[in-house]
Amino acid sequence: MAGSNFNIEKLTKAMKHHKLEGETVHPLASLQPDELRIAARVVKAANPGKVCLFRRILLIEPPKSGVVPVLEAEIAGEPLPQGPIRRSQALFYFQGETEFMEAIVDITHERMLGQRHLEGEHGPGDDEEVLEIAKASLESALVKKELERLQLPEGSEVIAEPWPYGSDDTETPTRMSQVWFFLNYKDKKDHPSANFYAHPLDFSCAVEIATMEVVRIDRLPTDLEMTNESQTARFVPNPDCEYAPDLLPGGVRQDLKPLHISQPEGVSFRIAPDGETITWQKWSFRCCFDVREGMILRNVCYDGRPLFYRMALSEMTVPYGDPRSPLHRKSAFDLGECGAGQTANNLQLGCDCLGVIAYLDGLSCSHDGEPVVIPNAICIHEQDAGLGWKHTNIRTGRADVTRARELVLQLIVTVGNYEYCLYWIFDTAANLHYEIRATGIMSVTPADPSVDLSTLGYGNVVAEGVFAPHHQHVFNLRIDPAIDSYRSSAVTYEDTHAMPRDPATNPCGVGFVCKSTQVQNESAFNLEHLTNRYVKMINPNKRNKFTKKPIGYKISAPPTQLGLADPTSMHYIRGEFTDHHVHVTKYHDAELWGSGEHLWQSRGGRGGCRTWASRGREMEDDAVLWFTLGFTHITRPEDWPVMPSETFRMHFKPVGFFDENPALDVPPSTQAVNKSVLANGSARPHERRDSDSSNSSAGASKCCRA
Amino acid sequence: MAGSNFNIEKLTKAMKHHKLEGETVHPLASLQPDELRIAARVVKAANPGKVCLFRRILLIEPPKSGVVPVLEAEIAGEPLPQGPIRRSQALFYFQGETEFMEAIVDITHERMLGQRHLEGEHGPGDDEEVLEIAKASLESALVKKELERLQLPEGSEVIAEPWPYGSDDTETPTRMSQVWFFLNYKDKKDHPSANFYAHPLDFSCAVEIATMEVVRIDRLPTDLEMTNESQTARFVPNPDCEYAPDLLPGGVRQDLKPLHISQPEGVSFRIAPDGETITWQKWSFRCCFDVREGMILRNVCYDGRPLFYRMALSEMTVPYGDPRSPLHRKSAFDLGECGAGQTANNLQLGCDCLGVIAYLDGLSCSHDGEPVVIPNAICIHEQDAGLGWKHTNIRTGRADVTRARELVLQLIVTVGNYEYCLYWIFDTAANLHYEIRATGIMSVTPADPSVDLSTLGYGNVVAEGVFAPHHQHVFNLRIDPAIDSYRSSAVTYEDTHAMPRDPATNPCGVGFVCKSTQVQNESAFNLEHLTNRYVKMINPNKRNKFTKKPIGYKISAPPTQLGLADPTSMHYIRGEFTDHHVHVTKYHDAELWGSGEHLWQSRGGRGGCRTWASRGREMEDDAVLWFTLGFTHITRPEDWPVMPSETFRMHFKPVGFFDENPALDVPPSTQAVNKSVLANGSARPHERRDSDSSNSSAGASKCCRA
Repeated sequence: MAGSNFNIEKLTKAMKHHKLEGETVHPLASLQPDELRIAARVVKAANPGKVCLFRRILLIEPPKSGVVPVLEAEIAGEPLPQGPIRRSQALFYFQGETEFMEAIVDITHERMLGQRHLEGEHGPGDDEEVLEIAKASLESALVKKELERLQLPEGSEVIAEPWPYGSDDTETPTRMSQVWFFLNYKDKKDHPSANFYAHPLDFSCAVEIATMEVVRIDRLPTDLEMTNESQTARFVPNPDCEYAPDLLPGGVRQDLKPLHISQPEGVSFRIAPDGETITWQKWSFRCCFDVREGMILRNVCYDGRPLFYRMALSEMTVPYGDPRSPLHRKSAFDLGECGAGQTANNLQLGCDCLGVIAYLDGLSCSHDGEPVVIPNAICIHEQDAGLGWKHTNIRTGRADVTRARELVLQLIVTVGNYEYCLYWIFDTAANLHYEIRATGIMSVTPADPSVDLSTLGYGNVVAEGVFAPHHQHVFNLRIDPAIDSYRSSAVTYEDTHAMPRDPATNPCGVGFVCKSTQVQNESAFNLEHLTNRYVKMINPNKRNKFTKKPIGYKISAPPTQLGLADPTSMHYIRGEFTDHHVHVTKYHDAELWGSGEHLWQSRGGRGGCRTWASRGREMEDDAVLWFTLGFTHITRPEDWPVMPSETFRMHFKPVGFFDENPALDVPPSTQAVNKSVLANGSARPHERRDSDSSNSSAGASKCCRA
Repeated sequence: MAGSNFNIEKLTKAMKHHKLEGETVHPLASLQPDELRIAARVVKAANPGKVCLFRRILLIEPPKSGVVPVLEAEIAGEPLPQGPIRRSQALFYFQGETEFMEAIVDITHERMLGQRHLEGEHGPGDDEEVLEIAKASLESALVKKELERLQLPEGSEVIAEPWPYGSDDTETPTRMSQVWFFLNYKDKKDHPSANFYAHPLDFSCAVEIATMEVVRIDRLPTDLEMTNESQTARFVPNPDCEYAPDLLPGGVRQDLKPLHISQPEGVSFRIAPDGETITWQKWSFRCCFDVREGMILRNVCYDGRPLFYRMALSEMTVPYGDPRSPLHRKSAFDLGECGAGQTANNLQLGCDCLGVIAYLDGLSCSHDGEPVVIPNAICIHEQDAGLGWKHTNIRTGRADVTRARELVLQLIVTVGNYEYCLYWIFDTAANLHYEIRATGIMSVTPADPSVDLSTLGYGNVVAEGVFAPHHQHVFNLRIDPAIDSYRSSAVTYEDTHAMPRDPATNPCGVGFVCKSTQVQNESAFNLEHLTNRYVKMINPNKRNKFTKKPIGYKISAPPTQLGLADPTSMHYIRGEFTDHHVHVTKYHDAELWGSGEHLWQSRGGRGGCRTWASRGREMEDDAVLWFTLGFTHITRPEDWPVMPSETFRMHFKPVGFFDENPALDVPPSTQAVNKSVLANGSARPHERRDSDSSNSSAGASKCCRA
């Protein structure tokens, strides 16, 4: 499969089509626009007489066996071996047909490697399609009949909000969408941020996407009953709930003074001419844009030593806890059904980031196979992260203090009503962090204002006429470690237990020990706060000079609630990563996404980390780790009409990877560099007096030397 | 007990001694210097012929029953009733005597209310005493004999590091200290940050504090044996491990560019003339300095509505997992034995904070009862906290985005080798956060370099000759809620459970519900991630207009490992807050600290939240909540010689306290205000094109209007 036995003539010929600024495309580079064009051209040429409607044109994960020799040669400073050929996967439909097609293209040689119908699977969506479905549903006679029933206020605009259809016990062989309806009315309706979600209508519809036909109306429950079958229900006007600053009745607060961040000597990071290799504070890595995964970090190294071969969000799902039909189907798989890159925001200087900022564009494709630039999809900046380390010698009064600095990569996705802000964050102490902020507008349904719904345990009324069901956000990261080697990765978990009280070994009953367990076979397990269990990626063949234990990086993250859906339910069956915090599998180039590849109306049985971990094969220093974290969102009025961001951060921290604090050489925090100032009108702070450090009888004043 | 029946003449007379800048002292104000002087004067006058050596002069918590009417009148804008008298507790010894004395002084009337010997209890320590004990131990013949045995290098300086003695099964009636010894040698030894901790010696000693006499030498284990009894062991030279930037062999890194934070229009917060009442973004509260608790937040209100009557760190303990004698006694109670205010650092502009900073001083007392200012003990500043909320309307391309802003109160304490950075953080979404950063130098013992210690499960060798035992940091916060009322507080916990699959109520098996349980009696319970359990403080008499459920604030914090010491051990017995995440008790003015009042060599049995919660009395809307969080520190070479700060943050978040997102009126994040800039040399970001928002067929570019 790898192309490492090409001769140089072939390689040179192959490379002619995909060079970037004069350089050969690196085997780990994101798909380039010219490569996307080649893939579309090859697919079109292979299907004469048909019109291809492309849903995705993606880079196929390069075979690791072919990439690693290149990376090892780079580190060793040796001549680079030939990398694997570049390959692309095109996912498409033929115009007027319903079969979901996949083609594999050898970009290097501009040739088709194979094409097939993905039987029983469906392609992902995009905003363009969303708008088409919305239009079609609003034109449907079935929907118009419902709208007439509701007797909407004069001049109302009805907004149709298509979602992936989801899956339940009923098999639905054709590609579908479920569409929610909202009302935009009153005098603010023409405002570009008018919040139509504040006025949910009491029905949804099911759309057959291939024909854009509405095949069914589903009435939504609105009170304590499981169903809503009234044929005479009318729209009940409820108050607007606006979030746009210019629509707020009271305006915005006036007392938040500006806060500016500047870097007079420029930023500390560097982006290579390839547009995605970034170096900062001993870190080097490739930040690849990906239509599905958003950001993929590749070849993350610290001080020239590899740490991670590849890390990315692998999937996320948002199962809702409202069991009432048709709401029971709500369970978005936002990566597999839509794509974290496909739905990326265009980040704006001064809006989405603060300070000194760089931007990377993303690349998607149009339905006809042309490159589409997603502008400013990723922003990059440094931020101060507070106190890094400090110690005061109380005998001398001397304090040494440093600040922590972080490098932040930000991508923000909008999936219909909701926003996810996704961050990879590097710091000056060799820690790596993954942060998620959930914000945007909660998915809501209508609530009969005349009924007390406080007894419904699966949601809350958050505004008059608006019911917000509780839901979970369950995220899964795939982490392919390379702890000081691309060829030697194992996973352990560590538990801390009390020692039994014993006159010989623990005479006073205070002892406790940390026990490490290496994962021997593909399997899944959970975190546990009672034993402080964490999971660690190690190199079993290298030991720390002092501890004599294998070097590694641990994941520091709290154990979160796992998926709540019943094991017989489709939410569970499809959500292959939702029932354990950690899955460990043997490396495979094609096992990249926690719930498998094609999620639109998926019904399980086609792979995912539960399936792969359950194989139970023996590990051979080839571990890939899948980490699940999530939060259960018990809805609040405070989350309405737009939700203050809810933040989760998990950490990757060295354990014996270094022989000392890697932040030791961070320069001291001094006023000469920091140039802080006293707040207006606040008292001048006490100055350190020369006598302080010599006043040994009373203890020295504990301060640093500004 | 409250002084609300004083007449106005008496009050006026009483107040004459304790005014601050012309204003009457508020009943919730911190102890004022003049008040401290009065207390000392009254105690001295009551004990003619004796010399009082003061260990602490503290404000006694004012009776809540007397304070609440004042606060209620303040909110209502009505004339203020008379507050309670101001009282002080003086803790002292008579020179040459060993009885630990307590006096209660009515400051208002300058009179002694009572004085007693606190039998079986001991006073807390301070840096001045630490230095005295160190000096005495170095002069002891027993210690000198040990140092001779070790045959230390020529020109070495021996550093003695006194600790609280701790408690074990052996009762020790007199006040003691245990002292560790380290070596400062080589050519860097005169540097004020020379890291003597890198050279731990193999013995400790026990000091009788009253006489400053060394009464016993304890040899420290150094290998796989439980004891160390060699009479001929010598000091084994090991490498220096320095952290001071000017002592690093390779110097500091040169590529971290300055990052400045400025507020050209000044800060958004205001400190009242009383020096401790702070208003910021609808928040108002009193940030009181306290010798024991460090910072006490009092009367925290939002938009004029009370939220918390009082909140503070109540205690912390650091039990070590090394069971070998004498290390088994290591278990600091840093508030009760030393004091988070007593050990506060002098924070320096440009070192410990970045941006535009205000400072508050602290107040302690000298051994002879004079006020001692702890300069710049608390610093206050605003910080940007990233994306606040965002939503993009994909139909119009319009994005609305705000940033989150935080107000940070910082106090940093140095307790011997270790630093704790303590933060109360307020934000623009009405959330309150408590953050702890642990840094400084780990407590270590000598390790025989010729022995492989990797089989010792209770610690790690972190450098040649240096063994760092695993340990826990267990913190307890006392939270006295006042959810929209000072008179109506209850506690609930909420669990989220899957609904059983059922054809009628949960036909597809996806439903889940959140169940709330109100705490009916004083009791303790734990968090549980499997049910997403969180704890909430509610006002049982006020309901949210939409949810119809009681208004409240929840604590959002991960469940952490609880204390590991055996229930028969002194670590457990003294650590009354370490075995449950949450204790709930009925309010009492005198129940403020999770492990009770006097911790030096405490042996339990004198109160603490375990004891109080176990009373099981019925709650009467008078709940106080004690929250335990902690972390188990499995030591790493990366934590040596100084530890990169380890951060924990817990959150207090409104649940139905508001009717909508309280951050809705935060002004939009715009370039006009933020003035961000492009990174040097980075490509100009894609600009939003006018056509984007009208290109309805392809979806609009998702960006805000900079």
